[in-house]
Order: sequence, then C-alpha cells, then structure tokens
Amino acid sequence: MNERYDIAIIGTGVAGLSAALNAKIRNKKFIIFGGEEVSNKLVKAHKINNYLGLYGKSGTELKNEFMSHLQSMDIQITKEKINNVYPMGDYYALMANDKMYEATSIILATGVNFGKPFKGEDELLGKGVGYCATCDAPLYKNKVVTIIAYNKHEEDEANFISTIASKVYYIPMYKEEVEVDSSIEIVNDLPIEILGDKVVEKLILKNREIITDGIFILRESISPEQLVPGLRIEDRHVEVDRLMKTNLKGCFAAGDIVGTPYQYIKAAGEGNIAALSAVAYIDELRRKKN
Amino acid sequence: MNERYDIAIIGTGVAGLSAALNAKIRNKKFIIFGGEEVSNKLVKAHKINNYLGLYGKSGTELKNEFMSHLQSMDIQITKEKINNVYPMGDYYALMANDKMYEATSIILATGVNFGKPFKGEDELLGKGVGYCATCDAPLYKNKVVTIIAYNKHEEDEANFISTIASKVYYIPMYKEEVEVDSSIEIVNDLPIEILGDKVVEKLILKNREIITDGIFILRESISPEQLVPGLRIEDRHVEVDRLMKTNLKGCFAAGDIVGTPYQYIKAAGEGNIAALSAVAYIDELRRKKN
Repeated sequence: MNERYDIAIIGTGVAGLSAALNAKIRNKKFIIFGGEEVSNKLVKAHKINNYLGLYGKSGTELKNEFMSHLQSMDIQITKEKINNVYPMGDYYALMANDKMYEATSIILATGVNFGKPFKGEDELLGKGVGYCATCDAPLYKNKVVTIIAYNKHEEDEANFISTIASKVYYIPMYKEEVEVDSSIEIVNDLPIEILGDKVVEKLILKNREIITDGIFILRESISPEQLVPGLRIEDRHVEVDRLMKTNLKGCFAAGDIVGTPYQYIKAAGEGNIAALSAVAYIDELRRKKN
Repeated sequence: MNERYDIAIIGTGVAGLSAALNAKIRNKKFIIFGGEEVSNKLVKAHKINNYLGLYGKSGTELKNEFMSHLQSMDIQITKEKINNVYPMGDYYALMANDKMYEATSIILATGVNFGKPFKGEDELLGKGVGYCATCDAPLYKNKVVTIIAYNKHEEDEANFISTIASKVYYIPMYKEEVEVDSSIEIVNDLPIEILGDKVVEKLILKNREIITDGIFILRESISPEQLVPGLRIEDRHVEVDRLMKTNLKGCFAAGDIVGTPYQYIKAAGEGNIAALSAVAYIDELRRKKN
C-alpha cells in the first residue's frame, strides 16, 4: 500500500514554497513536487522591488533566499513532474512518470506556463494525444510517435520512447541545442493542428505534415483542467474562493494559476492561505473519524 | 483647495506597507497614514517562520526589514490617525484630528484591533459618543467629558480637552502609568454600558457610575464600519472580492481587516493586490475623463 500524505503540493514556484513552510510548521505529513530549476519564471526576473522585506533583489537572489529558508526548515523538494491527479473520494492519486503518490489533500501551484492548446488537442486527448510519454509508451510499440517538447530535459523522454516506437519525430519548442539519439528525426517547425477522425492521424505544421499514431505534448506545466479532471476553471484560471478552495473537496490552489495579478508576494500570501485551509481540512476529517 | 491624492492607505501594518510599495512603483501620488509604532501586533510577535524569504526573524526584526525597505524606496509614513472617511462621489475625504485629506481611492489596512463595541455605543454614536476628542472638543465647552483610552498617547487628547470641558474623567485601558494634568480624574474601572435617552447621560462601570455629557472611546483602530459609512461588513470583517474590492467604488481593503487567517505574508500579498486594483481604478477613471 502506498504511503498516504496529508498534503501534496504540486509546484515549486513562490506559492508552492510558501505553502510548504506552513505545512511543515503545522506538522503535517506533506510532499512538494517540482523541477530542479524551482521556478523558471522567478529565475528569469530582473529586479523585484515589491516583495516586502526583500528590497531590490534579482529573481535569482530571491530564489536563493527562498531555498535557504526551505533548507533552514529542512524541507526537501521531490523532483518529479506530476502528470495527472485523480480524485479518489477521500484522497487523491498523483501520477508521476513511473510512480504513484497518494495524498488526502492537494495544493495546485503550477503557475500559468501551460499555453493555449493546439487546435484538435482537447478533442483528441486520450485518443493519441498525451502528456506523459513514459506513462503511455507501451501503447506505441512499433508505432509512430511525435513529441512536441518545451524543455530540453524532455529529450530523455524522446530517447526512451525511441526504444519502443518504430519512429519518433521530435519537435523542439525551446532554443537550446537538441541532443537526441540519432534514430530520432528532429523537426524544426511550428505545430498548428492535430487531425484525426476517432484517433490521431496526423499533425499539421506550418511547413509540412507528419503522419503519426501518437502525439505527446510536453509543456512546462500541464493545464489545470487536464491535470485534475473535474476542476472548475473560470477565465482560464482555477476558480477559488478567498480561502483558496477549489470546487473539489480537499483540493486547493494558489499563485498565478488562480489569476492575476501575477506577483510573487501575492503568490506567497495565497500559498500561506491554501496551506492553512488544507490543514483545517485535514484536521476536520480527523475529528469526524474519531 | 486640498491636494488630491490618487491613493490614501490607512494603516501601517504589513498590508499597508506592502500596498505602499506598489503605489510607489506604479508612480501614483499616494499617502500612507499610521502610528509611530508601525504595527503594535507585529512588534509583539516572537518568531515568524512562514514569511517566505525571511526565516526565523522576530517581529521587531521583520519590522526593521520592512521599514528599511520603505526607506530604500523613499516612502514616508504620515503620522496621523484617520478618524473618519467620507465617500464624496468621485473621491474620499479623510478626517485626521485637525486636518482633512482627499484621495481618489483608499486602501483600508487598519487591522482588527478594534474590539467589540460597548453596550449602547452604536446607538449613541454621534449623540455624545465619539472617537476623536480633538475634533469634537468645541461641542463640550464647560461640559463633562469621559475618555476611555486604549493607548498611552491618548493622554494628550485628554489634556487638550481638559482646557475646554468643565470636568474630564479618564479611564485608562492600558497598563502603562497614567500621566495626565492634575485637573483630570483618573478612573481605574471597567466600562460596561453607555446609557442615555436621546443623548449620552451616563457611563456604567463595573464599580461605579459617571454622569457625563460626552464619551470618547479612543481605541487603537476604529472599526471599519465606523471609519467608512456604508462599508459592507461580513462576519465582523470588511467584505472584499479576490481583487480586494469592497462594495464602495474606489475603496479597497487588505490584511486582517478582511478576514482570517491573520498572517503576515497573507497581509503582504493582499496589500499588493489592493494597491494594483487601486492603480487600475485610477487609470480607468483617467481614461474615461480623456
């Protein structure tokens, strides 16, 4: 049986880190998932003057202050990307590439780096369109797979799936040099539309078409409605109340994902509220059980 | 004619200070009102571990970081207590002891240090009950005045009114030694109820009664509904939406005053949102005028 966490925090931007501090202080059994770079957006910021108490720092300096705060409180980040979250009644199942985690409550803090879906993407999701190549690889044995990747570290996914699929097309949406196995065909072009009658048949790019059985779209974040089925979205953001509760019991959200203004101190404040709301939710559940 | 500010921030707790940073960055003409001690509550806090980026600081240390941030950005606090705010259509009139200020928008960040009203207080407000002795002093020439004071610095108010009134009773609700003019009678007792048919007649204390024409209740903060007439209150807090808008156009609120959790980082986040909402409100008004 899987270990059951009280709180799983998804995302290591400012909102997620702030939530983690409070989960720790309140002695909850929690886990926080994020990438190695903590928050791409934070690191890229130049000077931030409106984070009260920390004047004139660069994004990188702020990030370092935040990480040192987490270290002082002995909080570790679990470096996994959560691809799907399923509400299971009294808990949530969180799917990472090759693992499953369980948590009674979740805090979504994945930011807004998910972009607009491609034409045809939503319609063909689960019918050839997917967000986790490793998870769905077995479905594509000896088939043609196309990977649209927004981050250099997805090259590992491409290499892995190329050992299973008959052919892999790799479309890099990032600027760094592409280094993948020589069997993989790199396509430097812009995806426009995914076509298919019942299942994916082809990908239309600006300058060519690719006949393919599967398309994996590996963005920095997965859009919240794709991450958690049934989550209510309002104007492209997760709908929350002032206590950061979503429409799903035990599911909270904080930071850019819940709406503008996209500001660090706002995200930190919301992470605090979301964590305390999750703590109250857990405590209430325990009281009912006893 | 009075100078018209774009934004007046009332309160120098965490929410007010955070709002000020953003008003400054956005180049708005703003003013921030607060006491000399910045925030009593902040200074009294022991260790704060959940203000992301500033680990393990005491309340005083945090306050010093905040003040140094404000100084770096050349933001001055106007040391006045705002006793009343009147919505005037397209601006607000803010009454300090002996001055009036005008602002197109206001941000309420006065915290929750206002306590419950005494029995009879709400009913007799403006009929002998008041919150600013200096403002209403002329009404009490040769009359009997009672002052219920929650802060040592109110002793000045008592001394001033004793030069006008025929008799002043002074009831200190604080622990420090009382030092007032010898003509003032100090009453060490607990106020219970204010009585009067159409106007104030007497104050009932735990152990005695005082026949009086006026009663000034000088709390650390004025409750929001008394500060701004017409403000919508919900469960003893100012009702706001997620953009920190109250029911009054151009009036925003942030921090403890809008509800739990009472947390510094939450207040900082809300101050940021309130300021950006006020900025958007001002900009929208200007666009309409042009």
